[in-house]
Amino acid sequence: MKRWQALTEVPVYPHLAGLAQQPFDLTSPGALAPARMQQYCCSAAGFDLLYATQRVNDEVLAGLQELADQCGLVEQFRQMRRGAIMNRIHGFASEERQVLHTACRDLFADNPAEPVASGQAGREMAKLRTFLEELENGSLANAQGDPLDTMIHVGIGGSDLGPRSVYEALRAYKRPGRRVFFISNVDPDDAAAVLRQVNLASTLVNVVSKSGTTLETLTNESLIRRAFEGQGLDPARHCIAVTGEGSPMDSPVRYLRSFYMFDYIGGRYSSSSMVGTVMLGFALGIEVVLEFLEGASLMDLAAEETGLQQNLPLLLALLGVWNHTFLGSATVAVLPYSQALHRFSAHLQQCDMESNGKSVSRSGESVAPLKTGPILWGEPGTNGQHAFYQLLHQGTEVVPVEFIGFRHSQYGEDLEIEGSTSQQKLVANLLAQSLAMARGQENENPNRRFPGNRPNLILLADRLTPKIMGALLALYEAKIVFQGFCWNINSFDQEGVQLGKVLAGRVLDLMRGGREKDDVGLSPEMTLIKMAKMVRE
Amino acid sequence: MKRWQALTEVPVYPHLAGLAQQPFDLTSPGALAPARMQQYCCSAAGFDLLYATQRVNDEVLAGLQELADQCGLVEQFRQMRRGAIMNRIHGFASEERQVLHTACRDLFADNPAEPVASGQAGREMAKLRTFLEELENGSLANAQGDPLDTMIHVGIGGSDLGPRSVYEALRAYKRPGRRVFFISNVDPDDAAAVLRQVNLASTLVNVVSKSGTTLETLTNESLIRRAFEGQGLDPARHCIAVTGEGSPMDSPVRYLRSFYMFDYIGGRYSSSSMVGTVMLGFALGIEVVLEFLEGASLMDLAAEETGLQQNLPLLLALLGVWNHTFLGSATVAVLPYSQALHRFSAHLQQCDMESNGKSVSRSGESVAPLKTGPILWGEPGTNGQHAFYQLLHQGTEVVPVEFIGFRHSQYGEDLEIEGSTSQQKLVANLLAQSLAMARGQENENPNRRFPGNRPNLILLADRLTPKIMGALLALYEAKIVFQGFCWNINSFDQEGVQLGKVLAGRVLDLMRGGREKDDVGLSPEMTLIKMAKMVRE
Repeated sequence: MKRWQALTEVPVYPHLAGLAQQPFDLTSPGALAPARMQQYCCSAAGFDLLYATQRVNDEVLAGLQELADQCGLVEQFRQMRRGAIMNRIHGFASEERQVLHTACRDLFADNPAEPVASGQAGREMAKLRTFLEELENGSLANAQGDPLDTMIHVGIGGSDLGPRSVYEALRAYKRPGRRVFFISNVDPDDAAAVLRQVNLASTLVNVVSKSGTTLETLTNESLIRRAFEGQGLDPARHCIAVTGEGSPMDSPVRYLRSFYMFDYIGGRYSSSSMVGTVMLGFALGIEVVLEFLEGASLMDLAAEETGLQQNLPLLLALLGVWNHTFLGSATVAVLPYSQALHRFSAHLQQCDMESNGKSVSRSGESVAPLKTGPILWGEPGTNGQHAFYQLLHQGTEVVPVEFIGFRHSQYGEDLEIEGSTSQQKLVANLLAQSLAMARGQENENPNRRFPGNRPNLILLADRLTPKIMGALLALYEAKIVFQGFCWNINSFDQEGVQLGKVLAGRVLDLMRGGREKDDVGLSPEMTLIKMAKMVRE
Repeated sequence: MKRWQALTEVPVYPHLAGLAQQPFDLTSPGALAPARMQQYCCSAAGFDLLYATQRVNDEVLAGLQELADQCGLVEQFRQMRRGAIMNRIHGFASEERQVLHTACRDLFADNPAEPVASGQAGREMAKLRTFLEELENGSLANAQGDPLDTMIHVGIGGSDLGPRSVYEALRAYKRPGRRVFFISNVDPDDAAAVLRQVNLASTLVNVVSKSGTTLETLTNESLIRRAFEGQGLDPARHCIAVTGEGSPMDSPVRYLRSFYMFDYIGGRYSSSSMVGTVMLGFALGIEVVLEFLEGASLMDLAAEETGLQQNLPLLLALLGVWNHTFLGSATVAVLPYSQALHRFSAHLQQCDMESNGKSVSRSGESVAPLKTGPILWGEPGTNGQHAFYQLLHQGTEVVPVEFIGFRHSQYGEDLEIEGSTSQQKLVANLLAQSLAMARGQENENPNRRFPGNRPNLILLADRLTPKIMGALLALYEAKIVFQGFCWNINSFDQEGVQLGKVLAGRVLDLMRGGREKDDVGLSPEMTLIKMAKMVRE
């Protein structure tokens, strides 16, 4: 079987491109028949994927299965989980790394897919367990012997969005008395607003940076350390580190404890590593973290199934490829009907767009005219219904939608009002939106006409538990990876962030009074700086 | 001068479409010369707009000025502010209303543009001032005579996103001791999470619904009222209302106080009406609210200037039209380099997409093949740099970017670390990203190549004060309105949200055991409900 080939060269590609000329019409009479609704359903790790409201039929699904087979998508996923060097560009300098975020949760099988990485993950988990026990039994406390009940999680990007969105999702499970805050932005107001709310004497600062050199994180850490010193407290008694072994931050003198992450885990895939689990363990307890990891591992296993109907992440990925590559949509909206998931779309925005916002294949060739990763965005429903859904229903851009919903609420604090509970109202709205987008509605008044044929799907689970959250996280991680394989791009590097970093350094240098090294190249910066009036007097 | 015509029929349209075939190349040597950087700058109400990094030249700008003139954009804005019926579709049933959100802040001139509406706004402000004074001097208190120091703001969509984003932006100005919470989602977990954090005895509940019939808001209000009753407290002593005069919620028996909004203010434009200012006044004090309104009024005045170079909102709008209509971008990212603005893009997402996500002209004709409002999204920088910027720099979709930045921080709590303050680092990053996107960079390694020509602009102000926040809000409101005029659509209705509401009601009815009224039409709902297993046993 040929592998790592351009999508346009895969044998089934022209067939699918042909089918895309006349996609399934969701507005035709009987299009959404009960039989279709029941047949177009796929389940894994506690989730049902309802996709009758996609513009696909059996022929398209068969084509997508062929696409998966001809690209060897599942085979590549299996190789990835077993330690293959997937983070590379053939023929050019690149990161040349394994991709093993899945190993962090491969802790429940007798034979993990990649024993070395899972062994390392297990050792870090054991360190975390000990640390949490010591906090619990008081052997770890502040200088006065009082409990450390507050944590400030300091990280940015992959060290912030994923962990924070999981924390927000599982706040309902928070341990009484524990408080967690986040500082990410180099904007000094971010740190100032948090520092006003905490009692530093009882606060742990969890500094998270894989490289140990992240500008924002080190700057905020310095700000916080000076705040400790300003109160006569020793920062080394309050700061812990999550970083790469041997990084500049790996220092027992400066940190109470260090937890490691490894170069085979990309920042945006690191929520289930120590990057997320140290803070989650502090907030929720180690048992909740283990449930979360177990849910993720179950979804990882589902992603190794060969058949599209048995492999929910693969199906989700290929429905996306159908919408973006074959039907031409530039964006995708992820709309959770759950307030607890209010930051999950922001995490996915990072994970998806940083992974698949690429223009170069895994052989260093331009992918043009093929388009790769979409713009991913979203906010929770029902809130969004009162905001941007107008465009989803009647705008000139077609936005494929991925709804996420739950049959039951987290707190279970609900009341029946006018014959239905709030949770029933929430789910009723989700179902109604899915149908409205798909089938549309005619009207004599053109302004009240709904064209329909807006592809969408529903991911449905019983309740947003730690296990289900783990499964959801792993589902989207696998979706993104499958799509990257399909577009034949490297989903694991981020060269696109380098130029901005380099230029920011130059601008700062100029602000500090440095000379222009290159008249032509730097004059725009100088002009901009003057206009920003940020140069020191 | 011909008015209210399709954009494609405006005389200068073909000329602009021609120019768009070869847009200005930001990557050519010397393209970003200092003279261009200084010339392509426009100021109003405390903001500078730096737009040298847009793909425009003098010829394009002259064409856009002609477009503004030939469409009568400023003339329509003036008519709007003076009470014309702008919310209508000619020849079809439509809302047929004035559009007077600007009147809420037209309180500082001797002759307001529309005296009736500004008179009503002034009377509501006077009521608010009295209410806040009574809270302050203790003549309004709880049953025990203790101060009411906490407010839960209950609203959704336009009654939530705008007010909440302004509150978050101005938290640095919050009055000591006052606490504000928000409940919006019908998800019962949203209310449960808030109710666990407040002491109801000292809590005011601000229920905001223009119609007085919003499902989510009324449901949450009922939940909260029962919580009061459960603690033996009288909800009527704790609940206040912001609603339309005469709405079902306009009841002195049920509410301690009522503040009015009016049918000439659309929800998504209502932040500067009582919808926002009651909560903002409680949190920040009336003087801060007045500064906020004054900033908005200054920007409204700037939007009446005829020349593009004097009219910042119009220029911002037309640069967007250039990017979307003529260069074909489907989305726009608004990226504030300010953590305090972390919810501002979500507000704009609503305001823009609900306003301009339309497919029908103001004469009821399809706008096809013209595209209207883009998908607006964004998160704060520098956070986004570590998240989705990869796609902005190297992805296959070109995303026009609107950066927002400030020369100084809000709290002023900042430290110099490695020769620069955090605020300097923040602004340096903003400038660097703008340049990197515009000019790109060549590299022998194709994976390290930056194509450049990613259009962007910078909105820069000194500090995020209440006045500047008002100006920023009004700037984007005017931008959206100008673009709607230009695309010849009605930016003030939202017929696209109706079908979902109707279907949600039907689904709920079926959940409650109602019979199918229409086998063909309802069977998908029945199937979905069965699959969701939400039907009562």
